[in-house]
Amino acid sequence: MLTDAVIGELAAILGPNGLITSAGDMSPYLEEWRGKYHGQTRAIARPATAEAVQALVAFCSQRRIPIVPQGGNTGLVGGSLPGLDGRDELLVSMGRMNAVQEIDPLSGTIHTQAGATVRAVQEAAEAAGFLFPLSLASEGSATIGGTIATNAGGIHVIRYGTMRNLVRGLDVVLGTGDMVKGCTNLVKDNTGYALAPLIVGSEGTLGIVTAASLRLAAPERHRETLLLATDTLTQALDVLSRLKDWAEGHVSAFEVMADRAVTFAEAHIEGVRLPLAGRAPWYILAELGYSQIKAGANGLEGELANWLDQGWISDGIIAQSGAQRDALWRMRESLSEAQKREGTSIKHDISLPAQAIADFVRGAEPALDKIAPGSRLVVFGHLGDGNLHFNLMQPEGDSARFAEKWDEVQACVHGLVAQ
Amino acid sequence: MLTDAVIGELAAILGPNGLITSAGDMSPYLEEWRGKYHGQTRAIARPATAEAVQALVAFCSQRRIPIVPQGGNTGLVGGSLPGLDGRDELLVSMGRMNAVQEIDPLSGTIHTQAGATVRAVQEAAEAAGFLFPLSLASEGSATIGGTIATNAGGIHVIRYGTMRNLVRGLDVVLGTGDMVKGCTNLVKDNTGYALAPLIVGSEGTLGIVTAASLRLAAPERHRETLLLATDTLTQALDVLSRLKDWAEGHVSAFEVMADRAVTFAEAHIEGVRLPLAGRAPWYILAELGYSQIKAGANGLEGELANWLDQGWISDGIIAQSGAQRDALWRMRESLSEAQKREGTSIKHDISLPAQAIADFVRGAEPALDKIAPGSRLVVFGHLGDGNLHFNLMQPEGDSARFAEKWDEVQACVHGLVAQ
Repeated sequence: MLTDAVIGELAAILGPNGLITSAGDMSPYLEEWRGKYHGQTRAIARPATAEAVQALVAFCSQRRIPIVPQGGNTGLVGGSLPGLDGRDELLVSMGRMNAVQEIDPLSGTIHTQAGATVRAVQEAAEAAGFLFPLSLASEGSATIGGTIATNAGGIHVIRYGTMRNLVRGLDVVLGTGDMVKGCTNLVKDNTGYALAPLIVGSEGTLGIVTAASLRLAAPERHRETLLLATDTLTQALDVLSRLKDWAEGHVSAFEVMADRAVTFAEAHIEGVRLPLAGRAPWYILAELGYSQIKAGANGLEGELANWLDQGWISDGIIAQSGAQRDALWRMRESLSEAQKREGTSIKHDISLPAQAIADFVRGAEPALDKIAPGSRLVVFGHLGDGNLHFNLMQPEGDSARFAEKWDEVQACVHGLVAQ
Repeated sequence: MLTDAVIGELAAILGPNGLITSAGDMSPYLEEWRGKYHGQTRAIARPATAEAVQALVAFCSQRRIPIVPQGGNTGLVGGSLPGLDGRDELLVSMGRMNAVQEIDPLSGTIHTQAGATVRAVQEAAEAAGFLFPLSLASEGSATIGGTIATNAGGIHVIRYGTMRNLVRGLDVVLGTGDMVKGCTNLVKDNTGYALAPLIVGSEGTLGIVTAASLRLAAPERHRETLLLATDTLTQALDVLSRLKDWAEGHVSAFEVMADRAVTFAEAHIEGVRLPLAGRAPWYILAELGYSQIKAGANGLEGELANWLDQGWISDGIIAQSGAQRDALWRMRESLSEAQKREGTSIKHDISLPAQAIADFVRGAEPALDKIAPGSRLVVFGHLGDGNLHFNLMQPEGDSARFAEKWDEVQACVHGLVAQ
């Protein structure tokens, strides 16, 4: 129990600025971004060192006080919030341990504390002539620890894998307060069991990550960014296969967006506009990245003409400037914010084998319309790795009745995915 | 205890041809390739199905009979042999479960039983227009299960990672006989804990792998193979950095060989000859692989001239035909066999951060000469990922006295690596 006495002891363990207890100071840590989940707790720990995390966890273990670790609090499923089921839980925010520590250029490794944001690590890598490839819309707030705990993916999985593929080693405080130090710049490390990949994706249940050694890639100095219009997901998959083969290893992103998702962005986000002459059911945002070959030198335009001839795409453009590229990515990255403004949506983050995706989407639409008539399917995401954001938006004007269907909608989607 | 009664029960569980007990039939399973380790057991199980593995393990678990799983028995450290310390252990050979089952081209996944050889999987992948990238000298005998259990690396780690990076999912029989079915063609799978990467490299201590889903890569239709001469490991590392940057993602192999290792191969293996005008302390065997770009189209010769100007290399050739390429790789792959013929060698397979390698080799040579005067250091391996074969060959003519130094030599090398 987080009694006053326990809170006093925690404050002593954590030192100055190590514990927050006032409601005003705590509130930003307790709200989920869309306002669906509201956490509650009597105290939030903000340790400044790995030793403080160890002492804190050992203390809580002895007193049987449940801990919820938190990174950037950008999750949408309540996983970073304490007290959701009324339990008396301590929130441990890792935001103070945010130092990006060292880069080893020969092995291409960056060492960082877990509370550093993804963007801070991207920027440190870039300054040293490397790319840290994890990239997702929330990267300005999401932390390395949080993206490790959730095995985050994002737009570059197709080329560089999920967070698990980017982790060389971790320092982890286990539930006993014991520290397992595994940070390393070894490319191949066969000493003992591989604990780091098990920790990745364990959602904070096996320990608190305090530091990480992460793999860097060669910089993408030259990029070619394409926006393509296509009629079906099956055609989008044809383009994907062909592009992967043609650009061998240089496809850094392959995102799809349903027309409705783009429409919401155009309605709600200033400056977002589809830069094509007409509409299509689906759009593909793809990017090739090269460290040496100059943009335009690879014959991409001819290849695009080929896809038009094949009937795989109905229209397509290649960004001709950095500003055009930024505008295309801004459209993609504003989709979540646009949905928030449009109304209530029930969100799913699904993963399927590529060959099952088109059938799944075709089958789910009528099933969901039966449960929530008039609701609007909003699909977008990482077609390249079979990982889609599969969201159901409320019918126009009706939010409360739609929200009552939450569990039923989720059960339907989960059932179809498992099938 | 493997009593006659127990052996009878095992035979009944395993069915026809499922158990070997005669000394003659058992002997190939009990010898290590160099003859250093000699296993012993009263019976060898050869299960034909996953269900038989489950029944076998459940039975042995109840009776407290230790099990040693074996793949292709190509290991050099005795890990695949039973009874080394006099214990009464059952050997379980997975060689009958060798079906390569299915390829999913859209996700680039191959499903196979664990007893299939690495070569069988390579060949099935190639027939379907893919590359299975794991490649090591023993690939004709080494099995998928054995390379999973040891997290094998080989010559392509620099581009494709170790076996852990190639595993999408595993079916594993745990020590209780329970089966965890994890084979999948999902590119991203965040359901539950990631057990597969923990099983990889666990050396058979956590379970017996019965089947695997493995990641395939695009085929390397066009290859450029280089042999370079260089004076120091530091210069070899300079070439490595430059080549990785220049060929962005296409460096599939980067091997070094000390001159002495090549000399042994020329002396003992028919047809092996260094195809350069003079000798150098070190040779680099590097390979670039492309699926689309034609060999010769990338300006590699100009780049080589550049390295000569920089003084990083003293000589270099590019293979001009498949036969020349094969001859270069044959030289590299015959190094272990050549050492076996030269005499007794004490072997180590070490992994170091790239920047520590040159200093390590410089420091180890005099330390080892003090322990075993006249002994000859034989170094070769995967410089690209910091993983070297670091072997000490007996002095000429003297084998017995050298063998007495075994433990002392290994302790010295292990100590220096850890440092």
